[in-house]
Amino acid sequence: MNRKLIAGVILTLFFINATHAQRVVDMEKKIDEIISQLTLEEKVSMCHAQSKFSSPGVSRLGIPEIWMSDGPHGVRGEINWDNWGYADWTNDYITAFPALTALAASFNHELSHEYGIALGEEARYRKKDILLGPGVNIYRTPLNGRNFEYMGEDPFLASTMVVPYIKGVQENGVAACVKHFALNNQEEWRGHINVNVSDRALYEIYLPAFKAAVEEAEVWSVMGAYNQFRGQHTSHHEILVNEILKGKWGFDGVLITDWGSAHDTKEAAHNGLDIEMGTWTNGLTASIDLAYDQYFLANPFLEMLKSGEIEEAVVDDKVRRILRLMFRTNMNTERPLGRMNNVEHTNVARKVAADGIVLLKNENDFFPFDAESAVTIAVIGENATRSMTIGGGSSELKAKYEISLLEGIQKRFTNANILHSMGYASGPSAYGREIPSDLDADSLMTAAVETAKKADIVLFICGLNKNHYQDCEGGDRQYFNLPFGQNELIDKLLEINSNLGVVLVSGNAVDMPWLNKIKGLIQSWYNGSEAGNALADILSGDVNPSGKLPYSYPVKLNDNAAHYFGELSYPGDSINQYYKEDILVGYRWHDTKTIKPLFAFGYGLSYTSFDIKNAGANKKVYTAEETVKISCIVENTGDTKGAEVIQVYVGKPKSKVDRAVKELKGFDKIYLNAGESQKVEIEIPLSKLAFYDETISDWNIEKGDYKIYLGNASNKIAKELKIKVE
Amino acid sequence: MNRKLIAGVILTLFFINATHAQRVVDMEKKIDEIISQLTLEEKVSMCHAQSKFSSPGVSRLGIPEIWMSDGPHGVRGEINWDNWGYADWTNDYITAFPALTALAASFNHELSHEYGIALGEEARYRKKDILLGPGVNIYRTPLNGRNFEYMGEDPFLASTMVVPYIKGVQENGVAACVKHFALNNQEEWRGHINVNVSDRALYEIYLPAFKAAVEEAEVWSVMGAYNQFRGQHTSHHEILVNEILKGKWGFDGVLITDWGSAHDTKEAAHNGLDIEMGTWTNGLTASIDLAYDQYFLANPFLEMLKSGEIEEAVVDDKVRRILRLMFRTNMNTERPLGRMNNVEHTNVARKVAADGIVLLKNENDFFPFDAESAVTIAVIGENATRSMTIGGGSSELKAKYEISLLEGIQKRFTNANILHSMGYASGPSAYGREIPSDLDADSLMTAAVETAKKADIVLFICGLNKNHYQDCEGGDRQYFNLPFGQNELIDKLLEINSNLGVVLVSGNAVDMPWLNKIKGLIQSWYNGSEAGNALADILSGDVNPSGKLPYSYPVKLNDNAAHYFGELSYPGDSINQYYKEDILVGYRWHDTKTIKPLFAFGYGLSYTSFDIKNAGANKKVYTAEETVKISCIVENTGDTKGAEVIQVYVGKPKSKVDRAVKELKGFDKIYLNAGESQKVEIEIPLSKLAFYDETISDWNIEKGDYKIYLGNASNKIAKELKIKVE
Repeated sequence: MNRKLIAGVILTLFFINATHAQRVVDMEKKIDEIISQLTLEEKVSMCHAQSKFSSPGVSRLGIPEIWMSDGPHGVRGEINWDNWGYADWTNDYITAFPALTALAASFNHELSHEYGIALGEEARYRKKDILLGPGVNIYRTPLNGRNFEYMGEDPFLASTMVVPYIKGVQENGVAACVKHFALNNQEEWRGHINVNVSDRALYEIYLPAFKAAVEEAEVWSVMGAYNQFRGQHTSHHEILVNEILKGKWGFDGVLITDWGSAHDTKEAAHNGLDIEMGTWTNGLTASIDLAYDQYFLANPFLEMLKSGEIEEAVVDDKVRRILRLMFRTNMNTERPLGRMNNVEHTNVARKVAADGIVLLKNENDFFPFDAESAVTIAVIGENATRSMTIGGGSSELKAKYEISLLEGIQKRFTNANILHSMGYASGPSAYGREIPSDLDADSLMTAAVETAKKADIVLFICGLNKNHYQDCEGGDRQYFNLPFGQNELIDKLLEINSNLGVVLVSGNAVDMPWLNKIKGLIQSWYNGSEAGNALADILSGDVNPSGKLPYSYPVKLNDNAAHYFGELSYPGDSINQYYKEDILVGYRWHDTKTIKPLFAFGYGLSYTSFDIKNAGANKKVYTAEETVKISCIVENTGDTKGAEVIQVYVGKPKSKVDRAVKELKGFDKIYLNAGESQKVEIEIPLSKLAFYDETISDWNIEKGDYKIYLGNASNKIAKELKIKVE
Repeated sequence: MNRKLIAGVILTLFFINATHAQRVVDMEKKIDEIISQLTLEEKVSMCHAQSKFSSPGVSRLGIPEIWMSDGPHGVRGEINWDNWGYADWTNDYITAFPALTALAASFNHELSHEYGIALGEEARYRKKDILLGPGVNIYRTPLNGRNFEYMGEDPFLASTMVVPYIKGVQENGVAACVKHFALNNQEEWRGHINVNVSDRALYEIYLPAFKAAVEEAEVWSVMGAYNQFRGQHTSHHEILVNEILKGKWGFDGVLITDWGSAHDTKEAAHNGLDIEMGTWTNGLTASIDLAYDQYFLANPFLEMLKSGEIEEAVVDDKVRRILRLMFRTNMNTERPLGRMNNVEHTNVARKVAADGIVLLKNENDFFPFDAESAVTIAVIGENATRSMTIGGGSSELKAKYEISLLEGIQKRFTNANILHSMGYASGPSAYGREIPSDLDADSLMTAAVETAKKADIVLFICGLNKNHYQDCEGGDRQYFNLPFGQNELIDKLLEINSNLGVVLVSGNAVDMPWLNKIKGLIQSWYNGSEAGNALADILSGDVNPSGKLPYSYPVKLNDNAAHYFGELSYPGDSINQYYKEDILVGYRWHDTKTIKPLFAFGYGLSYTSFDIKNAGANKKVYTAEETVKISCIVENTGDTKGAEVIQVYVGKPKSKVDRAVKELKGFDKIYLNAGESQKVEIEIPLSKLAFYDETISDWNIEKGDYKIYLGNASNKIAKELKIKVE
């Protein structure tokens, strides 16, 4: 690039920035003008719901209403105005994208951007102004019923993946709403449980993904959580909202409650809640209108404003934020129109699903199956046919279609003889089919065993589902093991046919007493509309598995850090809980305490093999303002194309505080043909190595030696490097 | 204006036109591109409903759905997806504008533009793409239950008023939908009655308002009617749609059925129906989706297209029109956001209502009442308090508020002692109040008489209402006289207190046996949210009445042309009806047959007086291409400001065809202070004097002498002029 061209580029950039800056100034000026025209009643009305999923505009001024919709992996069906029933529209069948555990497991941030664009387009087509997602609560315990909606146990992974998702959604003029802020790490007692956690764990583990959403993705809205933190509800929290979110991070958007998470007018007013949704008002009043008027941020708020108990500037700030969101969404006339159920969205859904599936065990190349072969495959298990877009709570979807895992297999393996037997039954809703009442557990198991007997290969498709107490909002799992007698069933199947592989469908780790006895293991997620096709892609080898676990699988439940410390740590005593593991969440715990996981964070096999070589850093010694540049050569040493995730962890062996052995600080996913090699460069600003120093209430970059670990799993380190910070 | 300025203006106009032309070219090119991407199934899906009030888009391409709403004088409440129940939303309380009879009575086309803008803004705020109005069916009989939604008996008045209304609506990026095309002049047997009418009456009386909507207002959609014409249903009619609407007039928009007015797939395909709505499918199929698939323009259409029985070009034309409507509405990113319930809309509603109220009798200046005086006024009559926005059929509204006539009076006449008594009861829904069951007709009448006895002034607020068989869709009035014993009641009241005035609330003429006995008479209309305030404006003299009757009041029903010829003319024999009066509708009949009306078309009194003088035409002799310029001086000769409507009628005494004595061809409403005078100029292109010549199937401008009548009512001609066409 010659100097003239560079000058041109700089000029252009300057001009663009100036225009953007001018736009911001113009917008804020317009907002001033609007606020000056609003009555107090109108201002207050904008701060709370008018229906289950909308908040009022100011019709006389043409300020539109705000329409919101669940959820993180697809736009929910239309809900009735004032109750939770579906409105039974027929235009709300959408593309169900894979749940966010799948997206996280892809370790592919460009794919996350495509995901966000596609989801945002569907939300826009459905005329939604705010999409109530993504969820980035940290995976702390495998019992949390809502983990499937989140992005795993590592703050860096969740941060890296959430930013392009949000940008993608918001490119459509639809606000993302990152949730649930914060510390909503279990469903048990979620409405009131008081989380006690150190500042350090808060800043280092539980907040980074939110921080990235605000500072890097510039998210336009944030959803509060149900639980308490240090005695105050998080949706109107002095520390979380005032000090951190709107203070330190400079969040200029809208804080929305979770549905019914507001509890106090004064706190809501003063602690940064902007829009109150879903407050439980049943029975309070006779009419719908009046019910919404009883919200904490409705008449009680208005009265305090009128009496002077709350200053008008308080509501003005909320209205300013709401108007700002409107100028970015429903008052932005330049936003595109959106689209839905198009082939590009289907492709994104399938690619995320296939890229997220994790191959965990593959004895003697059990997988992939030869798609040309006329073998008999016994597909056993309810999850082979069960709809996983139905259920799960607020993230439930009306999918336009959902390819079941069995259908996907049947479509791909046309030469094979595919048998199927349910094996067990969890209850209704397997595609609306009624389970015949004479099919008790024993007869289902017997039929499955008979089916397995006839097969060359047994594929047991097991796992959890979207029912209450499974992977579902509103309750935690009751046990670590697989439900519905699946462990017993797998043993029976193995007795009859040992050529057996398992596909685990879940959003959580489970106990695997049978792991050593099976030939192969695939972790599939709740993969939405394209679930079956994506699994077939992997089973057939059309796609080489490249997903990596976004959370650790403990051997037993107490090996998980949250459970190690007993009930006060999880689930608490019903009033309080104490995050006693502090920063040592997930692999940080396993590594540091040398408690071997069943499967480690970042782990995942491939049908090919990779070599990581020539690893190095660009320097040995850095100052705190510098960026470490790690590089290596990755080579596909097998005979099929595939992808590998190069993961860079950093540790500080000697520190004035307790540290995890290592923490993920960078990764990159590389797609390579057989025999191909590529140079990988990963940059880590040294600021990212800071710890949260409670003695100064700020981040602190310690000087001294750091260890850099380069590998393809948290427990598969190919190369260790040393650097020094001066 | 100097030459330089003129040149500038011309250049600008040229530039604007060039840009507009280029835009049209671009739009049609984009439409070509879209059509080339659509499957046959997608094309067909766009041609019929998916719910009660929406039709599908093509989600995969981001082509939006079309959302429609009743109706002509306000945006209807939200209706359930698939049944006629209200969805019970709380964000759909709107401004109820006066029904279109009131707008027509205002004779103020600028006000009609303001009305259209306001209504369009409300529709846009409510996210509607098509507003199902205005209605311009000609007032043929005072029994038609739906006359209140239309613009009276004269094609020129309706044409002049409808054009700015449509432009106003469409300036918001919301399509108007002019209805019901055509010849839907009664509700009785509307679903099937076969109208037989001459070409001449069709072109001269029943079509001009539609023609103006298409050619002058460039309306984007038209709604078909339920009835038949010459043996074919009008929503897919060879003559009406193919030959006239889309042929001669070059309509490039979308023809939509009335809800359930399609009857045949082939006719719908070939005779220009573009979108089929509301077809009755109950019981046909089990599921909602399937029901819509049974529409005439759904699967049956698709099958004929697939078999080649119908050419693909047929559906392409429909889709092209639908896409054109979309580029003008929901795909036009430049359209404004709309607004609702703002003070400007309130003001328009009140102004139209006050400007439309007609003072019909005012013996000894009975009106206005002195607002400072401490008189006792007995307001008698159910219509003083009854909601008139509720009921009436599809034009029913959920008004944000509705000032009843009594409330309006109470608010304005604060010094007076206002008594009220219902006098009679028509049934439920007077503001939801239950009528006590012990209030039978006798006791209501007795109470009213007692009330009248105590008063200085009796104001009897009577008329029709929005119940079935009154002014209501779906049925015609059963009798010409006032219902619910109102005639008997008025006699009783007059016996007790002869200082009595009447306010008639209706959308139709009624029998008035008591006319000579009352002191004053005001025709009020269904005036919407501001009804009471507008009436108080007139009663107090704050606004000087200036409305003119948009239809003739016959003395008795058989004096009306449609009724004169007996049942075959109205309502028909249940299969056929014959418009035997031909072109002699309304005042044309009364004038030509010298049958004196009770009140004439164009009639209306004022609290002041006007003089029309110096009337003249710019020439004596014209060629057929020229424009007659009529001028006169109007002077307010009274002592209060007011408005007069100068009306120009034209007749051709000697003609080769039967002609009406005179026909309205121009009008202007002039607002003058006391003593003020103003020159009025009214232009009549000679082409407007053509008759439809059935011998040549075209318009024919006869040469020879014409008479021009200048006055302030069809029966109050101040000056006659003669001109000649050579």
